Amino acid sequence: MDKNRQILLAKRPQGLPDQSTFKFEETSVPKPGDSQVLVRSHYLSVDPYMRGRMNDTKSYAAPFEVDQPLTGGVVGEVVTSNHPDFTDGDFVTGRLNWADYTAADGAYVQKINPETAPITTALYVTGMPGLTAYFGFMDIGQPKAGETVVVSGAAGAVGMIVGQIAKIKGCRVVGIAGSDEKVTYLKHELHFDEVINYKTSGNIREALKTACPNGIDIYFDNVGGDITDAVLLQLNFHARVALCGQIAHYNAEKVESGPRFLPYLLTRSVLLKGFIVRDYADRYEEGINALAKWLNEGKIKYKETIVEGLENAPDAFLGLFRGENLGKQLVKVID
Amino acid sequence: MDKNRQILLAKRPQGLPDQSTFKFEETSVPKPGDSQVLVRSHYLSVDPYMRGRMNDTKSYAAPFEVDQPLTGGVVGEVVTSNHPDFTDGDFVTGRLNWADYTAADGAYVQKINPETAPITTALYVTGMPGLTAYFGFMDIGQPKAGETVVVSGAAGAVGMIVGQIAKIKGCRVVGIAGSDEKVTYLKHELHFDEVINYKTSGNIREALKTACPNGIDIYFDNVGGDITDAVLLQLNFHARVALCGQIAHYNAEKVESGPRFLPYLLTRSVLLKGFIVRDYADRYEEGINALAKWLNEGKIKYKETIVEGLENAPDAFLGLFRGENLGKQLVKVID
Repeated sequence: MDKNRQILLAKRPQGLPDQSTFKFEETSVPKPGDSQVLVRSHYLSVDPYMRGRMNDTKSYAAPFEVDQPLTGGVVGEVVTSNHPDFTDGDFVTGRLNWADYTAADGAYVQKINPETAPITTALYVTGMPGLTAYFGFMDIGQPKAGETVVVSGAAGAVGMIVGQIAKIKGCRVVGIAGSDEKVTYLKHELHFDEVINYKTSGNIREALKTACPNGIDIYFDNVGGDITDAVLLQLNFHARVALCGQIAHYNAEKVESGPRFLPYLLTRSVLLKGFIVRDYADRYEEGINALAKWLNEGKIKYKETIVEGLENAPDAFLGLFRGENLGKQLVKVID
Repeated sequence: MDKNRQILLAKRPQGLPDQSTFKFEETSVPKPGDSQVLVRSHYLSVDPYMRGRMNDTKSYAAPFEVDQPLTGGVVGEVVTSNHPDFTDGDFVTGRLNWADYTAADGAYVQKINPETAPITTALYVTGMPGLTAYFGFMDIGQPKAGETVVVSGAAGAVGMIVGQIAKIKGCRVVGIAGSDEKVTYLKHELHFDEVINYKTSGNIREALKTACPNGIDIYFDNVGGDITDAVLLQLNFHARVALCGQIAHYNAEKVESGPRFLPYLLTRSVLLKGFIVRDYADRYEEGINALAKWLNEGKIKYKETIVEGLENAPDAFLGLFRGENLGKQLVKVID
């Protein structure tokens, strides 16, 4: 308990990150200052957007600093509190270090109630990925019952929530995923109407045509690349595209080439909107309430892929780009 | 007066249309049926979107029929009326034939008042191009004073109205056009803040950086292609893109390749929306009122390029793709 293991950004990756991107070190446990709490990490959230923060470029989130701990969504327990709102034993979530311990300002962590739901849901269904799914799909997608929704990265953390919200809203849901295990889970556990395994389906455009006989009204994009190219050329008039992730391109070292689809978006009066969950910060309560209700009612199910041990967090992150995770990728830090 | 000249679609063009796309014929003057009016054309509107209607593909407007007259915006005079709302001598506008005469259902033409404004403004500032500029810029652009607006095809019919509305709304306006004559007109007559001649500016990205030191908040796109590529990679966080025209691609015979900019739209939370003016059909009155007011107040000026003679309409259309027109391209049909 007197040592603090942490994972630092060793250097900014060129292209695909690897183990050399990360550095592991042990320091002493930090001492919380005034108004701070010392949080012992239980679970870390591992998210594709973190790749963007490894670059030293203008984006929605400030870049990680080289030789500083990576940060991300964490749930943990308050072990020392210098803030009046918190006492030892409180469970909290916040953007904390990839470390055993973080000393954080009390204003920047939120208390969670371990009685109402498993604490990891604060990193998933009622946390950032759930809110991302909720606002992107509801606000940009503007779903109407009977419409056809396509979700790429459908078996990822955000994708599987999007598909379930779409079902709740009465839409026909077609998922795109990359393994038979994922396809089976989405079809039989989450009741997606159709799921395409893009690795085995052959021509993705033809597979989409078959799966979407009435065209595509809403596309929730987590991936970019060839899959998105195929979808964008099959959109209906007045379709909406929520641009949530572009994992196919996060490791690109320069601007890649692809089909020009603006003429298609024009003639179909398509709305395409990039977004980050923070765009909806003033509506988080609405989103959390809706998601918690659906979760309690059993209308939203979820799947977590949990890796044990802080030291395995880098590999869990690299696994995102190999498409290994089903649902939310987490790292369990405590024994 | 007993002959009716008309221009038909001879065949669907592959790529760039040419004179062989069109066929000229003389028939007898049609007789208006019940509830119809016979309209003698004074001016035809020549618009880039007509290229799309020459293809036999799903789009927002039904394709032209081969061996049938082309249709488009026309202003003319009622010479025979079988409809109670119209009398001989009324000026009207509607989607009519590229011909001396059209027999049209009275329900599909609108009366215009030649006393309040020149009749050609019904094909321009207070007609389809003006409304296109108004709704695309106001509804998708959501301009705020002080923001930087870039307009491509700035010296075209829609572009020059967009730029002027942007000035009315207190924005900094940067136009992109293709000749020194156009640049001079936009800068000195319409008071654009900066105008880039993309044919002589060298690197368009550098020219944009210089012209837009605070980045780009709104992009109104009439052209697509390299110009749009350059703009899309320089957008500010929460920028809006109104996708109005893609003239660089209208003659493409297959999907072309270009840079993948979805990752950029994502990380900047950009809104991109294709639209056609008909999306705003229930708000036309608002648009017409605003445009007519600005026109009367002298806050919107306009330029027309008028070709004389119905027989020259095909060449006027082909000229759009050579970038010949300054402002609205019209054909004067009557002597």
